[in-house]
Parts: sequence; structure tokens; C-alpha cells
Amino acid sequence: MIPSKRIVEEAYKRTTPHVHKTPILTSQLLNEISGTQLFFKCENFQKMGAFKMRGAINAILQLSEEEKGKGVVTHSSGNFAQAVSLAAKHLGIKAYIVMPSNAPQVKKEAVHGYGGIIIESRPTLKSRETEAAKIVKEKGATFLHPSNNLNVILGQGTAAIELLESEPNLDLIFTPVGGGGLIAGTALAATYFSNSNCKVIGGEPYKVDDAYRSLKSGRIEINTNTNTIADGLRTNLGDINFPIIQKHVDEIIRVQEIEIIESMRLIWERLKIIIEPSSAVPFAALLSEKQRFKNKKIGIILSGGNVDLSNLSF
Amino acid sequence: MIPSKRIVEEAYKRTTPHVHKTPILTSQLLNEISGTQLFFKCENFQKMGAFKMRGAINAILQLSEEEKGKGVVTHSSGNFAQAVSLAAKHLGIKAYIVMPSNAPQVKKEAVHGYGGIIIESRPTLKSRETEAAKIVKEKGATFLHPSNNLNVILGQGTAAIELLESEPNLDLIFTPVGGGGLIAGTALAATYFSNSNCKVIGGEPYKVDDAYRSLKSGRIEINTNTNTIADGLRTNLGDINFPIIQKHVDEIIRVQEIEIIESMRLIWERLKIIIEPSSAVPFAALLSEKQRFKNKKIGIILSGGNVDLSNLSF
Repeated sequence: MIPSKRIVEEAYKRTTPHVHKTPILTSQLLNEISGTQLFFKCENFQKMGAFKMRGAINAILQLSEEEKGKGVVTHSSGNFAQAVSLAAKHLGIKAYIVMPSNAPQVKKEAVHGYGGIIIESRPTLKSRETEAAKIVKEKGATFLHPSNNLNVILGQGTAAIELLESEPNLDLIFTPVGGGGLIAGTALAATYFSNSNCKVIGGEPYKVDDAYRSLKSGRIEINTNTNTIADGLRTNLGDINFPIIQKHVDEIIRVQEIEIIESMRLIWERLKIIIEPSSAVPFAALLSEKQRFKNKKIGIILSGGNVDLSNLSF
Repeated sequence: MIPSKRIVEEAYKRTTPHVHKTPILTSQLLNEISGTQLFFKCENFQKMGAFKMRGAINAILQLSEEEKGKGVVTHSSGNFAQAVSLAAKHLGIKAYIVMPSNAPQVKKEAVHGYGGIIIESRPTLKSRETEAAKIVKEKGATFLHPSNNLNVILGQGTAAIELLESEPNLDLIFTPVGGGGLIAGTALAATYFSNSNCKVIGGEPYKVDDAYRSLKSGRIEINTNTNTIADGLRTNLGDINFPIIQKHVDEIIRVQEIEIIESMRLIWERLKIIIEPSSAVPFAALLSEKQRFKNKKIGIILSGGNVDLSNLSF
């Protein structure tokens, strides 16, 4: 059930030629504020602006030639839709993206810009799933789940492998927790590529704390309300990533909305980079309990930078 | 009058150990939009968030031990105040910063945070100059002009030397033009460190086009109105940098305010980095006449990232 080191290494070798090796930023001031030594892994500089590119590429590269010929399909209105579109274009195959009719125009344009073929659904999960199933049936396309797919999980983990190659003695890595793909992949990376028994901690908004509750109860919990600014973290864990998380993630720390906003502002102001709200959650989690982490060497995965800036008054 | 290659090289060697070697970012999409090959030199990641650190360090390092003991003074409410404060702190000397009584609290706090000693003046240039002259007289401190000081100019030019060491075959470098220190230093760097007769072009807002008019008339012109969003570019050239600019800068392209805002938004969105409005001016200048620069290899100095984000509604 838990992939071996060899499987994880193979995914890393397979993915590396197709993605950016993203920079790792540090900040004296943020070290002082947190009382720790921080290494920010900047997946906001990844192709299409988020770590999701890694999982999409790894999953598509694992398809047979016949499967590639028929294309891939996903339903997402977020970064995974853009990632699958761009990864598919890069590898010369078709990507069908099911998007709800009320998806923001800017997201539709992004998918379209990366070459994805948009299929409109009604704005319910059921309708999205039905439309995606239709494409699988009619076109023979392969369905790619954004987070509950082992090849996607293995791809997402390659950001942490890069981080650990550069900083092999991290005590901790913090990631956000949404559907669970990133944190599961990161936990595998820490298990196999750390010199120092590096632990993995997830940051999650109180408002969508399904992963926190799932680790407590031992079964996959869902969110009844998804009203958080961290719009990438509204989804639940799945049966493929949950066992990895149960075994290899040490804990999940929950944060309030205001903590997310303040952490995002600190990163914008001090690192001079654009990150999306979901990316600020792990730093917010660290700050909320910083006395526990004093003097630790900590990696933070900044998951993405796709923010709609059109409402900013410059 | 024009410094020799040896002088420029010495400043580079002197400054390098004290500043960040900032990253150079590229973007496939911005290349496509501009029809050129772009290399963005990210001085927004420089210490204190702007290239001004380079000039401040180089100027202070050139003081005698006796001068260092008496400290330095400048009048500025912008990045140079922060640069002098941080550079002086770094070298263990005192920095007196004359700031107008109406300077934004956030700027006063930044100077204070970097260890500068704030002296308040009335909000006129004359009062600022008078207060600075008093400090020179009373404390024996050395006055540092933000742009019309040869050691400051030489320090500012080191960003372009780093850029040219990495990309020696640039056809052009674009910089913003404010007081003239950055563009003069950049022009010296291009003159002495390019393999390809690299030209230097300045970007300047129409609203404060003193440098454009100065190059036309052959004498230093001033701005009667300084109402531009590019608040770092409101100042005039000086008698030390103007001859360098006359000899080594090829042209100045003026841009409208809306072009500055659109270019800034493009850089935030596509490079995922925070730059201040003044930093967007050279890219705006390039875009405004992009047909002339088709397929050229172009460096752009992104001068800084100090934006007051407190009004953004996240």
C-alpha cells in the first residue's frame, strides 16, 4: 500500500526533466519572527504557478501510448485543471477539463490558454463527475484525480525531494492539506530522503479541518462548510492518500482565517513574492505554535501563486 | 569625469561581499508578449528590498575610519533612507535620516527598524536640506546624496555587472530613471562589461520626464509636477550622473501611468513577484515600442519591491 523508496525515486527521475527546479528562499526577518530557520520552497514559481504541475506530469508520463492517444480528463476549477492542460500540451496529448458553468472567467481563460478543452457542467460535484465519466466512456480518455491518484501523489512529493537534496538536515517540513496529494507525497519524500528523521506537519484551516478530524477518527471525514479563503484546501482526503498520511504525517495544526491572511501578507511583504492564500496556511500553522519549534530547521512548501489580481487597486 | 573600468571594477569587488547576488528570472509568456528574450534582474530581492543597498554600501565603505566614526546623513523618505540605515548598521556606524514630518508611518518604522536615527523636518526640500546640513555641521557626519554621488552611482551599477556576468550577450538593458544613479551606474557597467555593445535605455513616466528633456536640451531639467504612481522616479538628475548619462545612455522612452500599472500587474501575475511601481516603468517602456526590439536579448532591472500592502484587501 505504501510505495517503496524505489517507486518514489523513479517518479522523481521521471518528473525532473519536465518541471522547474524551483528556488528556495530564506529571510532573516521571518527567521527572527518565527524563532526558527526557514527554507521556503517556492512552487509559486513552478510552471503554471503551482506544484500541481508535478503530479500531472508524472501521471501522464505513466500512461501507455494507447492511453496517451485518447487523452486525459479531470474535473477541477483550480490549479489541477491548469496543470493537466499544460502537462498534456507539453506531451502532445489532449486534455478534457470539466468545469462548472459558474467557474470564474479568469480560470476558464487560463485552462483555455494552456490548451485544455473545456467541457461545461452544472455547478455540482455530481454533475462534474457525470460529465467526466461521459468523456471517459465516449473518448476513452483516462480520468486523473487531482489528489487521490498514486502517480499524482508521487509527482507532488518531488518538490520536497528537491528541498531535501538542498537541505538534507531539516527537522520538519510544513505543507498545506487539501485533497491530501501534496502532504502524502511530501511525507514519502521525508521518509526516504531525509538525513535527520524529518517530520511532516500539515497546516489546515479550522473551517475545512477534515484532515485533522480524519486523523483523529481513523476514517475519511468530510467538510460540510467550505467557506475558507484558502480555496485550494476545501477538498477531502481519499482512500489512496489517507493511509500514507496516517502512517507518515506527524500531525495537523489548524489555523484561523485571520492567521492565514496575516501570514500571506508577511510572505508578500518580506519575501516579495506572490503566493495564494492556501500557500500561507503552513506558515500560519507554524507561527500559531512557534514556541514548540524554536531553533528548528524548517522547510515550508509554498504551494502556488495563482491569485486573481484583477480586483487589486494598484 | 567618466570613471575608468578599473574604478568600476573596484566598486564591484568592494560591494559584492555585502549585498545579495539577486536572482535573474525569465518567463516564456512575457517573452511571447514582448516578442523578445527577457532577463529580469530582481533587485526586489536585494537586502532592504531595493538596489539602493548597493550604492549605500559602496559609499559608506569608501569613508575613512574617522568619517565612519562620525556617521552619515541623508534626506530621503524612500528606499535610500532604508538603504543607508541598513548599510550603516551592517558596518557598525551611525545613520541620521532626515524625514519630512508628513512621511508615512510605515516608512518611518522601516528606517527605525533598520537602526536609522530619524530627524524630523518640515515637509519641504529646503527644510530637509537645512536639517541635513545641521547634522553635517553638528555631528561631523558625511552627507550621502541618493543619486548624485559617484560612489553611490558605482554601487548601483553592480546589479548590471552581475546581470552581464550571467548574460554577457545582452543587446539592451532597460532601467528606470529617477535621480539618475541607477541608470548612470548601469550605463558604466554596459560600457565596460558587455560582450556585445549592449545599449542602455531608460524608462521614465511622462509625468516626470525631466531626464528625457535633459537629454534633449543638454542641461539638467526639473519637474514642476511630480504626480506619478512611480514615486521613486520623481527626482531630477544631478551634475555628477548627467555627464555619464549623456555619454553612455542611448535613449529614454516615456510611458503613461496606465502603462506602468499594466506592466506592474503583468509582472506580479506572471513572475509571481512583488515589485514597486517604479520598477515596472522600464518594462512598460519596452512594451510601448516593442516592434523595435523584436527578437532582442534584453535585461530589465527590477529596481525594488517596497510596496505598502496595508491597503490591499486580501
